[in-house]
Formats: sequence, C-alpha cells, structure tokens
Amino acid sequence: MIVTVTPNTALDVTYTVDGLRCGDVHRVSDVRSRAGGKGVNVARVLHALGADVRAILTAGGATGTAVVDDLTAVGVAADVVPIARETRRTTTVLADDGSVTLLNEPGPRLDGDEWQAFAAAVRSRNADVLVCSGSLPPGAGGYAELLGGTPSILDTSGDALLAGLAGRPSVVKPNADELREVTGLRDPVAAAAELRKAGAGAVVVSLGAEGLLAVTPSGSWHAAPSTVLRGNTTGAGDAVVAALALGLSRAEAWPDILRRAVALSGAAVLGPLAGDVDLAHYHREQGLVAVRARPEAHRTDSPDTP
Amino acid sequence: MIVTVTPNTALDVTYTVDGLRCGDVHRVSDVRSRAGGKGVNVARVLHALGADVRAILTAGGATGTAVVDDLTAVGVAADVVPIARETRRTTTVLADDGSVTLLNEPGPRLDGDEWQAFAAAVRSRNADVLVCSGSLPPGAGGYAELLGGTPSILDTSGDALLAGLAGRPSVVKPNADELREVTGLRDPVAAAAELRKAGAGAVVVSLGAEGLLAVTPSGSWHAAPSTVLRGNTTGAGDAVVAALALGLSRAEAWPDILRRAVALSGAAVLGPLAGDVDLAHYHREQGLVAVRARPEAHRTDSPDTP
Repeated sequence: MIVTVTPNTALDVTYTVDGLRCGDVHRVSDVRSRAGGKGVNVARVLHALGADVRAILTAGGATGTAVVDDLTAVGVAADVVPIARETRRTTTVLADDGSVTLLNEPGPRLDGDEWQAFAAAVRSRNADVLVCSGSLPPGAGGYAELLGGTPSILDTSGDALLAGLAGRPSVVKPNADELREVTGLRDPVAAAAELRKAGAGAVVVSLGAEGLLAVTPSGSWHAAPSTVLRGNTTGAGDAVVAALALGLSRAEAWPDILRRAVALSGAAVLGPLAGDVDLAHYHREQGLVAVRARPEAHRTDSPDTP
Repeated sequence: MIVTVTPNTALDVTYTVDGLRCGDVHRVSDVRSRAGGKGVNVARVLHALGADVRAILTAGGATGTAVVDDLTAVGVAADVVPIARETRRTTTVLADDGSVTLLNEPGPRLDGDEWQAFAAAVRSRNADVLVCSGSLPPGAGGYAELLGGTPSILDTSGDALLAGLAGRPSVVKPNADELREVTGLRDPVAAAAELRKAGAGAVVVSLGAEGLLAVTPSGSWHAAPSTVLRGNTTGAGDAVVAALALGLSRAEAWPDILRRAVALSGAAVLGPLAGDVDLAHYHREQGLVAVRARPEAHRTDSPDTP
C-alpha cells in the first residue's frame, strides 16, 4: 500500500470570475471545493489510477469536516487525525483570461500531542511506499520523524525539505526554484548532487514545460514531454509524485518511472482541478515521452532500480 | 425595535496579503471572518450605538453556523431562519498598497417554503422600523411582500429595488450608480423624483466622498462631510442606513438625520471591517457636517419629519 501523509490539509476552493482586477468587486460565477493539500492530491491521482493508496491527514472544524466528506464521496481511503483548530482553505481564482491566482490561508497550529498522534497514525500503517508531501503547519515536528526504512518520497521545500533529508528519503522532488532556494546553486545537476550528499537517495527536479531531470544512484536522465500543454499546472507536481510512488512500489527502472511521471504530469495539467488527471492523455503520452541519459551521469552504485 | 432583514446572509471573510497580483500565489497573512450581508451589518452598527435592534437572517450549512456563532459572540439579537443550502461567503482581499478586492459568492437558492418562513419571521416581529437590505437570493420573493404599514428603509439595487417600490418604503437609499441604473437618468434629483413617483417616500442618494443627497416629502438637502476620509468604504452604505433607521425610529427632522448619517458613514470608513464604526469620529463629525437645503426642493406636503 502507498500511504500519503498530509499534515497541513486544506479545503481547496476554486472560484471562477470574469476577470480578476485588483481593487474591483467580483461576482463569483462558480464555486467548487474539494479536499486538498499535496498528499491528498497525490492520493486522489493514485486512486484514479486504481492504485492501493491511503491518505493520512489532519482535519479540524467545519472546513475539516468538508475535507473528510469530500474524500468519502470520492472513495479515497483516509485515516483522519482530528485537530482542535480549523483546517485552512486555499482559494484558486480562475479568470476568463486564463489567469490562475491563489490565496493560501496559513495552516492551523497543531496543539498538544496532535503531531505525535499524526506520526503514530503514519507508523501504524506500515506503508510499502510513504509519500510525505507539502508544507508543515506550525507545531508540527519534521518529516524525518516519519521517514526511515520504507521506500519514500519527500516533496516539500525550504527548511522542511532540508530537515527532512535526515530521514534519508528514497526520492525528493523539488522544482527548479525550490532546488535553487535550498542549495544556493543555479545548476540543477550540481544542486541535486548536494541533496544526495545530504541524505536523498534520488533527486527528481520538475522543470515545468521542459519535463523532469532525475539524478539517481543508477544514473541521470532528462525526460521531456512530447508537447507543451496549456492548463492548470497547480496539481502537476503532485501527479509527478504519484507516478514516482507507483514506480517505487513496482520497483520499475528509472526511465520507465520518468515516462510515467511526465505523462501523468501532463494529464494533470489537462485536468480541471488539482488532483484530476486526463487518463487518455496519460496512456497516450507514456509512449511519446523522450527519455535521454545525461552524459554527466556518474553511477555511484550498481542497481538500475531505485 | 428596529428590525433588519437579510435574506442573502454572508460570512464575510477578510484576507490580508502583501499585494494582490493576478496570476500569482499569495500567502494570506491574516484571516478574519464575521457575520455579514447588508442587513447584518446595519444591525451591527445599530447594536454598537446601543439601539434596540434585531437581525432576521437566513443561515445554512457550516458557513451559516459560523454566521450565527459570530452574532451570538457579538451580542446582536437575531432570528435565524434555517435554509437547506450553504450560506455564501464573501472574501475581501486587503493588500498593503491599500487596494480592496472583493470576491462575492452567489447566494444559495431558497428552496420550498423557506422564503415564506422568512417573511413570516419578519411579520411576527412587528418592527417600529423595518430595514430591508441587500440582494435577494434565487428563490426569494420580493421586498414588497415584507414592507407596508411600518416605517421602512429599502437598500437594494436593480430589479429588487424597482419591485420593492410597490411596498411603498419610507426611504430608499441607492448610490449614484444604482440610481442611474434603475432610472436611466443622469441627474440624481430627477432620478430621485422618479423613484418617489414609483412609491418611495424619500430618496437618500449616497454620493461617496461628497456625502448624501436627500429628496424627501418635506424638502431636499445635500449633506457633506467635513473631510474626505481614506479607509474601507465597504460598510459605509450600511452605516448610512443604520443612521436613517435610528432617525426614523426617533422621528427626527431630515437635517438631523442627514448629519448623523454622514457622520456614521465616515465612522464606518474608519472602522477596520464592514459593520465596525469609529464612535469618536461619529460623535465629533456630527457637529461638522454641512447640511444645505437645495434650491430645487419643491415641497410636496407639509410635515418636516419623514
């Protein structure tokens, strides 16, 4: 079973407006809301692919209830750790000019032993692959406390990423900006090597429309999509993580994992909301992704599976 | 007792961000939420002034519960008519450049006999002054069904305003744009006369920083503030309505009512959120408002109280 953990759950609300103009009054023509937070989105994608997945998440207040109700309706298996404070909301404003503007509330502080209860819930599930995604709310411990022993993916940024490396995650998945921020290095290959030295098994860097760069114990690859897609990129990183988790759970070779990840990322861009994927695109694109071994790859050990 | 009615209740959420940039991701630094909808705001202002006021409102779902909890906490007396659908939210985004951007969800449709239950709740209170404020949600009847017999103020726009005139409200309070929209006339004095012909007793037009224009059975006046204030103008119209309601309930003369209304409007601009008023400004400004009878005033009947 793949287990995703979401300590900083959100109710993702999507507003549709004619156009967003700073200083104006806008009539929202459409309101949709669904369970969110990066780990929840990863679980939603894996559920859509038929994978055996369970989401572990915090939930508090009326917003937390709305999150849990949505997961129940969709059929995503979830372990809910109740918290005293109200779950946050994120609001995505879609305007008819195609712009996407996000307003993210701060996460509610975890009180008392809520973090310990959360960590215990994660440990009790004995995941085959553990996915730690997203930011940590105030009062949380670190991802390193959850990682260790199990094949795992860490997808977070800043201090949460740096501290999480002590847990020796199998894969970390920063985007280019996040990678530069934590290493101070502009060259993604050199920066990825730094993260590997600090504890990451493999580093998969999302390069937006240019695809993925993977620096792994068995080599380095660049995987590029067949075409540049227009759409909502909010959930694309979570789709990459879902593909990585599926690949780890099946012990696939890196080129195969990367094909799946690029295809699923594109399928998420075409999905209307974060966590939705266009399955037709996913299946079609897997045969079209170009994966090239990078010349600077230096094998540091022998296996060609992660 | 003054009774305010709010068929289209809202939870007013205020977000503070560094700056609002279309297409960007924003971290919300502060989240505040409170009961809203124009009638609720009017009740909040009157409660702050110590007036005997009761709010009648619809409430549904978790958002409706949050609205009722807030009114209870503030101490505003309320009759709540439960509805099946979720109460809407309005989100005000305050940026540090001073800009104020609003995102207003559509109101939830009233189902079955919810409107009848609402109208019955209004009638059962036998108000001394009835305040009908704000938009009508889908499925609602019209304000004309609530008005009649009682001294009343109608503060709405478009079709809801035009249809409401059949209830012969004592006062309507459009702003200049709303007045132009419903009459097609650019001259506010001529437009106000049209609304009076159609059923309004008096018309008080809010002119923004230029104050108020009142066209009444006993004459016409212009009331101007002593100074132009900078702040949140969202609740200023509701403060004007609160002042008008207090004036009607005390049968004050129009110049006195207008002094109070301009002062309270300014006090609302200085309040941090819609429904808050700066009482020091209110008391100081009442002596400074300039009220001038307008030469084009033609008395249509004798009393100099509304």
